[in-house]
Amino acid sequence: KDYKEPPPAPLFEPGELKSWSFYRAGIAEFIATFLFLYITILTVMGVSKSNSKCATVGIQGIAWSFGGMIFALVYCTAGISGGHINPAVTFGLFLARKLSLTRAIFYMIMQCLGAICGAGVVKGFQQGLYMGNGGGANVVNNGYTKGDGLGAEIVGTFVLVYTVFSATDAKRNARDSHVPVVPSSIALQQFEIILAPLPIGFAVFLVHLATIPITGTGINPARSLGAAIIYNREHAWNDHWIFWVGPFIGAALAAMYHQVIIRAIPFKSRS
Amino acid sequence: KDYKEPPPAPLFEPGELKSWSFYRAGIAEFIATFLFLYITILTVMGVSKSNSKCATVGIQGIAWSFGGMIFALVYCTAGISGGHINPAVTFGLFLARKLSLTRAIFYMIMQCLGAICGAGVVKGFQQGLYMGNGGGANVVNNGYTKGDGLGAEIVGTFVLVYTVFSATDAKRNARDSHVPVVPSSIALQQFEIILAPLPIGFAVFLVHLATIPITGTGINPARSLGAAIIYNREHAWNDHWIFWVGPFIGAALAAMYHQVIIRAIPFKSRS
Amino acid sequence: KDYKEPPPAPLFEPGELKSWSFYRAGIAEFIATFLFLYITILTVMGVSKSNSKCATVGIQGIAWSFGGMIFALVYCTAGISGGHINPAVTFGLFLARKLSLTRAIFYMIMQCLGAICGAGVVKGFQQGLYMGNGGGANVVNNGYTKGDGLGAEIVGTFVLVYTVFSATDAKRNARDSHVPVVPSSIALQQFEIILAPLPIGFAVFLVHLATIPITGTGINPARSLGAAIIYNREHAWNDHWIFWVGPFIGAALAAMYHQVIIRAIPFKSRS
Amino acid sequence: KDYKEPPPAPLFEPGELKSWSFYRAGIAEFIATFLFLYITILTVMGVSKSNSKCATVGIQGIAWSFGGMIFALVYCTAGISGGHINPAVTFGLFLARKLSLTRAIFYMIMQCLGAICGAGVVKGFQQGLYMGNGGGANVVNNGYTKGDGLGAEIVGTFVLVYTVFSATDAKRNARDSHVPVVPSSIALQQFEIILAPLPIGFAVFLVHLATIPITGTGINPARSLGAAIIYNREHAWNDHWIFWVGPFIGAALAAMYHQVIIRAIPFKSRS
Repeated sequence: KDYKEPPPAPLFEPGELKSWSFYRAGIAEFIATFLFLYITILTVMGVSKSNSKCATVGIQGIAWSFGGMIFALVYCTAGISGGHINPAVTFGLFLARKLSLTRAIFYMIMQCLGAICGAGVVKGFQQGLYMGNGGGANVVNNGYTKGDGLGAEIVGTFVLVYTVFSATDAKRNARDSHVPVVPSSIALQQFEIILAPLPIGFAVFLVHLATIPITGTGINPARSLGAAIIYNREHAWNDHWIFWVGPFIGAALAAMYHQVIIRAIPFKSRS
Repeated sequence: KDYKEPPPAPLFEPGELKSWSFYRAGIAEFIATFLFLYITILTVMGVSKSNSKCATVGIQGIAWSFGGMIFALVYCTAGISGGHINPAVTFGLFLARKLSLTRAIFYMIMQCLGAICGAGVVKGFQQGLYMGNGGGANVVNNGYTKGDGLGAEIVGTFVLVYTVFSATDAKRNARDSHVPVVPSSIALQQFEIILAPLPIGFAVFLVHLATIPITGTGINPARSLGAAIIYNREHAWNDHWIFWVGPFIGAALAAMYHQVIIRAIPFKSRS
Repeated sequence: KDYKEPPPAPLFEPGELKSWSFYRAGIAEFIATFLFLYITILTVMGVSKSNSKCATVGIQGIAWSFGGMIFALVYCTAGISGGHINPAVTFGLFLARKLSLTRAIFYMIMQCLGAICGAGVVKGFQQGLYMGNGGGANVVNNGYTKGDGLGAEIVGTFVLVYTVFSATDAKRNARDSHVPVVPSSIALQQFEIILAPLPIGFAVFLVHLATIPITGTGINPARSLGAAIIYNREHAWNDHWIFWVGPFIGAALAAMYHQVIIRAIPFKSRS
Repeated sequence: KDYKEPPPAPLFEPGELKSWSFYRAGIAEFIATFLFLYITILTVMGVSKSNSKCATVGIQGIAWSFGGMIFALVYCTAGISGGHINPAVTFGLFLARKLSLTRAIFYMIMQCLGAICGAGVVKGFQQGLYMGNGGGANVVNNGYTKGDGLGAEIVGTFVLVYTVFSATDAKRNARDSHVPVVPSSIALQQFEIILAPLPIGFAVFLVHLATIPITGTGINPARSLGAAIIYNREHAWNDHWIFWVGPFIGAALAAMYHQVIIRAIPFKSRS
């Protein structure tokens, strides 16, 4: 009756390199990250080019664009690739041994390629506008130090990866819960997993609401890389390390929190 | 235990022309598209007529109107007609042989008639306003080429029809998934299908956030036709082909992506 | 396996007058309508009193307030009273014989009392502001005829009651559906009913996006009556009939559409 | 088949002090309240520092931030700690004997500590901005009396705790419901509980839409305390009692309403 936890993924799983589902998963990550950058950077451009933010969807509309796309795309690709669409998420899940190293690296490459193509199409539409309005690239804004930007990326990615772990943890209801209103069952766990894209998308939306004024919000190295490569100006590259180091630290902290505190793995007391 | 996939729909299914459910489905598509145009075009008019966008629901409100109506209407008509409310969606599903040619054509006609009536009622309320504010018709905006507009419609409709296929694919969890947290079951598939209107509605919302500045966002030929017929000015008709060709190409690409990559039908490897 | 439809409710059901659950349902309707008016009218006042709509939650925020409260309150009271919170919804469900006449009248009275109290508390907070900013009362705005207002109320309430019927119709998946992706089952129907508050709340939100510029959006006679009684100025009373006649006509049309077209009751062909 | 209600929690349950799950629950409350304050107060700062609210996510964005975080965090911690993240919620559930006094006090302490740390990190990012823009502390705004503020906090917290009780009440469908469209089953109750974070998050969002103009909206003493301690100016401390007394009264009223009216416990008539 209780949920049987799958064993940790091996570092290298030679068999998966011969299966169509491995490559299909990579293509699905590519397409999803492509559509993610296309829609979000186009929304950013539409808001940036207008003098009156009132005549656009506004900064809040940008936050909806990022969060909403993650919701829809995770929903659409969860059954194919797990629905990462973000190297920091892939990194966090890899640390928790949910996928092999081979697969993790393959996913990250496909995500970055997709992001570059997505930002490229937006630039293709409106080259002048794109270059004149910052190209959707992440930089630390005036008035904030690089340390602020790094901190914002770390905590922001923590919020996202913490939500990914919490919302997809198949053991959560099998654990002893003192709260009597939540009965345990396999069916219940399944609903929670089906609904998981909703809190995950909301987490992305909420981090954007909070940190767009600081860094434009990365919390996704593929998104930052895609925009930086297509924009390709020095001031964007100067801060670029922040949008890899920050998300990876945040994802690692979230994975650690989940394994040590929530799952209590070091103490072997899976109560 | 595994889901048994239904056979492809025949091109012509004479029996369905004699069933009440066939005509009921057409009426449901008519009413849904009528309500869709009525609410969305009325929202567009309310925003357009005001000098200060701040004193209206804003451009973001328009995007919510289109996306939210699709969510509510797909939810309400999914069990009656499949909840298309859009000739591009009908076309994509027809290419995947989910419905007969007879039914596809019948749906498209009813959708277009519903859209014309919906826009007509809005014009009836406020004729001067309607004609003075563009009538909610889709045109390629200043600063963009017709190629930009066509591209935006193709990718935008791809996002929508890709979401429709992904979110309603009954085989998605029956496929071999490496992600161990998603157990397979019929019940699970049912939840996903019940929830499908939510990502579908969000996809429409998100495409509007991104492409309202370019074309006002069509991605639905019935919506574009209804507004164009009731508005009936030359500059709207000049661009009108874009809002049929773009969505049909986008829908075809999404259908192809789903059948070739996700379903791998050409390779006969339904793993 | 198929869903067994309950018999039509009798006009008078003397037994229910002796049951605690009857009175509890009425109290639940009172409290829900009280909270509905309190939150929504307070939101309207916050937006109205500010010169710059940008420094408030805006007109879109008002639409969220009405739609969001209906979502939350229907979710909370569905198991107690059916979650009407609106005499037009009660009227539509009564026409479809989903509840007795006794209960329908009792609900409407409790809804109106709750609405009056809710608006009264808002006035108590800020009497000058309340009277100076229209008190959240529904009137036909300048530039629109009374016929426009009546039409907007009829179609708006049709959208709402159509969603109520479609989203809670237990037979919808038991019907013959040509769409093979939607398998039929009792469980499936239950999910749909559990999720019903979401499309219902969205319908209210969407009608507000569209018709706030015309009438401030009634589609709920208790809401209109509560604000009118507490505001109590002649120009609000002059239009007041529109906010009873319109919603009741719209609800009747939606009930008729559902019974005649969707359920096909007159033709006795429950296929 | 019917749901078996758990017995009331004892006041003191010595056993739980020795279980890891007790301390894990407290840590989960700490982390959740930390993230809650961090994201929401950072969003408030981003809006406050800008002269043109149009170039920010706006007041509506602040309301989304509070409501959305509660949705995501309740979803993530429901299986670990019950997902309170708010001393008023803990107090209300304690009055209904859903958790022991020991646990209630432990939760409240962890929530307050988390809130203080979350606000502290925001101040660390941007000390000048934080102190110059009110620090996200709750105060009664100009034009309102302390009585208005207290009333707004009481009714606002009532809305929240009423939603918590209604949406997580395992008996709601086991009760005799006259509404025939809602069939009773354990599975149904489980879906409702899984979905509960959505109406709960919406309740928080809606109360913010309505009462930000009055008090900035507390309805969560930990949130008010955390901001007050880090801001630490006299005018914030002067009103601070309102944000404890109001929420506790509102939570007590909601608990009473649920036990007396909805559950009818005093009358022993659990029909």
